[in-house]
Amino acid sequence: MDAISFEPPRGMRDFYPEDMIWRNRVFDAWRRAAQAYGFSPYDSCVVESLDLLQRKSGEEVSEQIYHFEDKSGRRLALRPEMTPTLARMVAARQGRLTFPIKWFAVAQCFRYERMTRGRKREHYQLNLDIIGESSVSAELEVMAAAADALSRMGMPADAYRIRVNNRALLSELLDRSGIAAKHHPAVFLALDKRGKISDEAIAELLREEGLDDAAVAKTFELLAVQTLDQAAELAGQDSPAIATLRELFALADIYGIADRLVFDIAVIRGLSYYTGIVFEAFDTAGKFRAIFGGGRYDNLLTTIGGDPTPAVGLGFGDVVVVEVLKDLLGETAAAVRHGVTIGYMEAAQREAAMRLARSLRDQGEEVDLALTKLKPKQFFSRASAGSAADAVYIGPDDVSAGQARRKHLETREETVIPLP
Amino acid sequence: MDAISFEPPRGMRDFYPEDMIWRNRVFDAWRRAAQAYGFSPYDSCVVESLDLLQRKSGEEVSEQIYHFEDKSGRRLALRPEMTPTLARMVAARQGRLTFPIKWFAVAQCFRYERMTRGRKREHYQLNLDIIGESSVSAELEVMAAAADALSRMGMPADAYRIRVNNRALLSELLDRSGIAAKHHPAVFLALDKRGKISDEAIAELLREEGLDDAAVAKTFELLAVQTLDQAAELAGQDSPAIATLRELFALADIYGIADRLVFDIAVIRGLSYYTGIVFEAFDTAGKFRAIFGGGRYDNLLTTIGGDPTPAVGLGFGDVVVVEVLKDLLGETAAAVRHGVTIGYMEAAQREAAMRLARSLRDQGEEVDLALTKLKPKQFFSRASAGSAADAVYIGPDDVSAGQARRKHLETREETVIPLP
Repeated sequence: MDAISFEPPRGMRDFYPEDMIWRNRVFDAWRRAAQAYGFSPYDSCVVESLDLLQRKSGEEVSEQIYHFEDKSGRRLALRPEMTPTLARMVAARQGRLTFPIKWFAVAQCFRYERMTRGRKREHYQLNLDIIGESSVSAELEVMAAAADALSRMGMPADAYRIRVNNRALLSELLDRSGIAAKHHPAVFLALDKRGKISDEAIAELLREEGLDDAAVAKTFELLAVQTLDQAAELAGQDSPAIATLRELFALADIYGIADRLVFDIAVIRGLSYYTGIVFEAFDTAGKFRAIFGGGRYDNLLTTIGGDPTPAVGLGFGDVVVVEVLKDLLGETAAAVRHGVTIGYMEAAQREAAMRLARSLRDQGEEVDLALTKLKPKQFFSRASAGSAADAVYIGPDDVSAGQARRKHLETREETVIPLP
Repeated sequence: MDAISFEPPRGMRDFYPEDMIWRNRVFDAWRRAAQAYGFSPYDSCVVESLDLLQRKSGEEVSEQIYHFEDKSGRRLALRPEMTPTLARMVAARQGRLTFPIKWFAVAQCFRYERMTRGRKREHYQLNLDIIGESSVSAELEVMAAAADALSRMGMPADAYRIRVNNRALLSELLDRSGIAAKHHPAVFLALDKRGKISDEAIAELLREEGLDDAAVAKTFELLAVQTLDQAAELAGQDSPAIATLRELFALADIYGIADRLVFDIAVIRGLSYYTGIVFEAFDTAGKFRAIFGGGRYDNLLTTIGGDPTPAVGLGFGDVVVVEVLKDLLGETAAAVRHGVTIGYMEAAQREAAMRLARSLRDQGEEVDLALTKLKPKQFFSRASAGSAADAVYIGPDDVSAGQARRKHLETREETVIPLP
């Protein structure tokens, strides 16, 4: 038979036990933070109907969907994001759910991308969504929950910033510049490419959308706005978009996250369905891509045939945050020794070792029991290389004495324990 | 635009928050039990190379694989089981890993099946594997860990039995009946269909494999063996397969699971790669399909091009166990109230409610904060329908007094707490 490749499919990740240390640190922090903020878990299958995904996703995403037909000719796909599925699940029960709902999921998502600089074709993503609430209370809860997750992972508060904007503000400003509402979605998508393509290429996209040179120039002028006060001057003191932003910043103080929030008119977000506040978190040093991002999408449910419902959502991937944490804290910062490993010298001590393992497990301990006899040197060399905090090695004398020594592998302290 | 279906794709499951209660109970029990028994987590992508899966899986599974080509023409598939991926990952690092290894994963797996009686096309499965150990210590650890998981889920020890057999015993007995070793794999696969197809259809499969009528009759006679002692009489007192089974049953006593183990010569397992001990757990009442199953597969790594390595594995799905638990304990047995919900009467109390939420979250509590003002009746009716254990409702008098009442929703007991 031909040899088979031992590599995972291109762009997909294997997680060996040492990789799971970081992954579990991230996933645990996500789940605990979501629950601390009162979000309920939900999930669905990674396989979704292609029709739903094409109806709902931004244009760029559609080309990147992994899709296939099942044996009955159904058009299926590996979801590129969770939001269309969430919208479908909510629409299916719209008459029965009590709004607002606060839901979270940790979902694997797929995108077929060209493979550049270690970019993967799948990742996991925390999704936090609040559906049925139009006040900024919703934005605050998702932002604060994401900040709490970062803090549980060990990320210092000064190591990242959440950049906040309001698409409604941009719409007001574009209106005032004489750019009609029908052009706004295309303008948003073009401006979101800033930094990825040249400003000249963006200007070309805007001209293709029908903007004249004056309108293109005014659009770029907007991006030069630095502060909320400057924006308020342009938008007028009665601007609803400015009022929303001011309320958000004021309440962020009560939530204890005001130190991490900054206004940034250049934050747009790539997906076409956002309608209001949008935000993205970046490491303060600016070395990495966005850690998380999200915003308000009040029209999404109607797009797929549900009732009009205000909503706010956030996506927080597992790749960038681990890069940032490793950079800040070191590659091995997440490894913590835990549990106890038990070994024995001769077959005659096997049953004593099994009894001790059972007794410690009954007491709630994590026990790695050697499956065969080991010489002391072998056992302790494996124990040091492993992840256990403590080690117990049982020889014939220990069984006679009815007790053994439990050794803390880092401090080398020993305590005598009875053998059951 | 046409309406879009709000249903998940056929055979796939949505998990609403109430469905997640059972799922989390099962997943948490799996992870805690695996860790209590010293298994390390691993994972890989649900998308696997089709070549690997076809090389490794049993014949029946191959027809049921969801497969597709990516945009570069790679032949990919949604894995039907985790074992081929595990074998690949181990083979990739065979020179670097220190054996034995004990690994676990909670993996979603897909099979394209005809949809009968609510059977799904995807499920989640705990996989426990020990690679590099040939003694029954390995079988004991995976069985005891699975039993521990059941116990953490609330399953009484007398509600299920683990039926144990040894394929090596069947091979010895078939040898003694004059049935050559080359026929054994086909005989195993035919016998495993017992109960699913008629005995006459099984006999026909055996005749197709080249067994004459006498050999077919002898094969069925073997299945009539009731006890290990009867099997030992047929196999001879020096049978290595009998010795292995006896050792397993003796040590199960030390592990505290002997009460749940029974010898059953009819347990075969459908996959072709098992070589030794095989086992399946069923509810004692016999109402449901197998809860978990597994066995020894010593040749698997060589099949995909790795070095010869003894191995034991177990698969434990999420569907049957929840059916059994709901039948035994009731549909709502897994729901436990937790956390606190906070509401407020008027916009003027919103900041006080936010401050209290922040303070309780800082103390590690799970807090569901109302996002808008609610009338008392509205708030308490939602709180009762929700999942929180406690409720705090803040009115104008509470803010003046600087304190509020925290009410336990089940006992209706109240305690006064300060407002921060």
